[in-house]
Amino acid sequence: VTSFRVGLLGHGTVGAAFDALLRERADAVEATVGRRLELSGVLTRSRGDFEELLETSDLIVELIGGLEPAREYAERALRAGRHVVTANKQLLSHHGAELLAAAREQGVELRFEAAVGGVVPIVRVIRETLAAAHLERVHGIVNGTTNFILTEMARTGASYEAALADAQRLGYAEADPSDDVNGKDAAAKMAILARLAFGAAVELEDVTYEGIEHVTADDIAYARELDLALKLVGTAERVDGGLSVRVHPVFLYGGHPLASVDGSFNAVTVESPAITEITLSGPGAGGPQTASAVLGDVISAMIPPAVPPGPAQPVEIVTDVESAFYLHLEVADRPGVLAQIAELLGLQGVSVKSVVQKGLGADARLTIVVHPVRESRFLAAVGLIGRLDFLRVPPRWIRVIEEVFE
Amino acid sequence: VTSFRVGLLGHGTVGAAFDALLRERADAVEATVGRRLELSGVLTRSRGDFEELLETSDLIVELIGGLEPAREYAERALRAGRHVVTANKQLLSHHGAELLAAAREQGVELRFEAAVGGVVPIVRVIRETLAAAHLERVHGIVNGTTNFILTEMARTGASYEAALADAQRLGYAEADPSDDVNGKDAAAKMAILARLAFGAAVELEDVTYEGIEHVTADDIAYARELDLALKLVGTAERVDGGLSVRVHPVFLYGGHPLASVDGSFNAVTVESPAITEITLSGPGAGGPQTASAVLGDVISAMIPPAVPPGPAQPVEIVTDVESAFYLHLEVADRPGVLAQIAELLGLQGVSVKSVVQKGLGADARLTIVVHPVRESRFLAAVGLIGRLDFLRVPPRWIRVIEEVFE
Repeated sequence: VTSFRVGLLGHGTVGAAFDALLRERADAVEATVGRRLELSGVLTRSRGDFEELLETSDLIVELIGGLEPAREYAERALRAGRHVVTANKQLLSHHGAELLAAAREQGVELRFEAAVGGVVPIVRVIRETLAAAHLERVHGIVNGTTNFILTEMARTGASYEAALADAQRLGYAEADPSDDVNGKDAAAKMAILARLAFGAAVELEDVTYEGIEHVTADDIAYARELDLALKLVGTAERVDGGLSVRVHPVFLYGGHPLASVDGSFNAVTVESPAITEITLSGPGAGGPQTASAVLGDVISAMIPPAVPPGPAQPVEIVTDVESAFYLHLEVADRPGVLAQIAELLGLQGVSVKSVVQKGLGADARLTIVVHPVRESRFLAAVGLIGRLDFLRVPPRWIRVIEEVFE
Repeated sequence: VTSFRVGLLGHGTVGAAFDALLRERADAVEATVGRRLELSGVLTRSRGDFEELLETSDLIVELIGGLEPAREYAERALRAGRHVVTANKQLLSHHGAELLAAAREQGVELRFEAAVGGVVPIVRVIRETLAAAHLERVHGIVNGTTNFILTEMARTGASYEAALADAQRLGYAEADPSDDVNGKDAAAKMAILARLAFGAAVELEDVTYEGIEHVTADDIAYARELDLALKLVGTAERVDGGLSVRVHPVFLYGGHPLASVDGSFNAVTVESPAITEITLSGPGAGGPQTASAVLGDVISAMIPPAVPPGPAQPVEIVTDVESAFYLHLEVADRPGVLAQIAELLGLQGVSVKSVVQKGLGADARLTIVVHPVRESRFLAAVGLIGRLDFLRVPPRWIRVIEEVFE
């Protein structure tokens, strides 16, 4: 049996878990792939030599994190004809294109399952599904921190601030959670998924994103009456010959496969006329789970690869897409209010799906769901509605994703 | 570019859809795999010659269905060193072991994704996850007909008979639905999944199964008050050094990833300490979707295979496993009733998790959920409870699957 030597960069929580898992699964891997997995060495800040590690390795696992020296090591490994597996989404969102180009030139693999969907093998499933089906759309809950916070808010009625504090206490959010809660982390992952699913040169700058910092417990509570659940959802889809890639807090109807994905779990739905839709869900990244995703990538790289994916194609990014919306208005309870609102919506071609009126007098509120419409038209209508004198507070609105198939 | 020639057996709904999809996706497949997919010929009852087809094909797609001549063709193709892809679960559950042995001997692939999870690439995900993680348990909703019927019963309150008639009218159930509704179809698929997940020689005869014919709308309605959803779930798990493979109607708590899988969809949850759990869901088999799953298998077979899986190992089948249960009792409303029931449960070591009493006088009913316990002990307790004179009808009980992780 020939061996397959893995050089490990970094020996923190994930690195140590990977080290242990590699030894534990060596027999099973050999039985599956026919080669023996061996650790050729470990490089940390205090020990090991990169050149020597490169010399004695078939594949480099990068678990240092951050940009430098992770980028330099990954690039040097690829240029030296070594496969590279990384769990580093920051590295990929800043240098993904150049690293993938280097891998392509050298005919080696760059794999990064753990950086996108945690344990969920979404990258592999998209790659394999791709040839058999023309993908139209990918929806994803790809940030465990925000999903945990939104689940807590829905479950307990807590405010955003209280739920965030809980998430930090329980280790689901970092001390500085900015890039999670503002949607940037999810946007970076959606850029990677869009590139995979559509073979298109999508960068983080192409992704419109919005976080959950302004979501209120009231939004969640009111919408639950309509069987709507709030999630931070990334969408990548073909629109008018171009692509739209975006991340927003959105409402999902109870029947949507992502509606019941709770806690720190991640999930991705892939849609295509040929397959209807496939959903994959599982835990987001965490120590031992990430190690398992990394090992899965190592094993994939051990199997002689098919033709590597071609270079990503340039693509037009579409921003004014169609969405359904939830619109929440606090109004004075007097005759003609609904008629005026309906008229302003109608003038912009916005069609109302449902209206619920709650409360009386100074507490009256309208919860309106509208059918999918070009976003610019809905926003124009909301702009006009916002000027009506019977509104007690500015309008609040959130996108709604409807079930496409069923 | 070299070509990869596919011989097609059968040209019914799925066969015709596969034929069309193969032409449509040929460019995409070539870009991914580096070989050109070509249809070498089609064999139907009225045209084509099997020997000639075999001679000119690299791979045979079997979409005839039924046992013979499907078995004979598949075996001859494998013996002639051709890969075989089939969507025929009947063939696999009766002749899977011998066909897999023939494939192994010849060093070719036998693939059957469409026969197990419909469009959901569960076979591929299990195969790939396997080397990286030691699987402990697989839960699956693997029969679309029964899931459609149970979903309709829950949604509309319809009786089993009425929901079945609906399913037949809408094409989700066949004129003779016996093997779907009695659990046999799901049992055959669970045997295949258990074989894959545990490398164990599991046959249909090893699977304990039970169907949904005796489920009542009341069972579903009462349990919904406890946030329990009824599904026909197949389970394959390691127990005491052996395996248990079984199919039962079971209740799932709302948070379980299978609880929200509705309509004719299929889903599978794979559990392992290293990955926690991964869930895949998507449409069950249907004309165009099945064709897409078959094409996925063809593409997998085109990629140079890793070491083929070894022969399945003999394994001890465990039947007396642990389960949580829902127990429904219609009782006379008089003092001491609950105490007597609790005593009989306690004597068998059955521990009560929750009790709900509803109704009064002649309508009184108790809904009890017990913690996981050896099934034989629960059944012994129910046997004793069934003899109590204040019971108005025999006890009804259904298994409950709790969330293991979270």
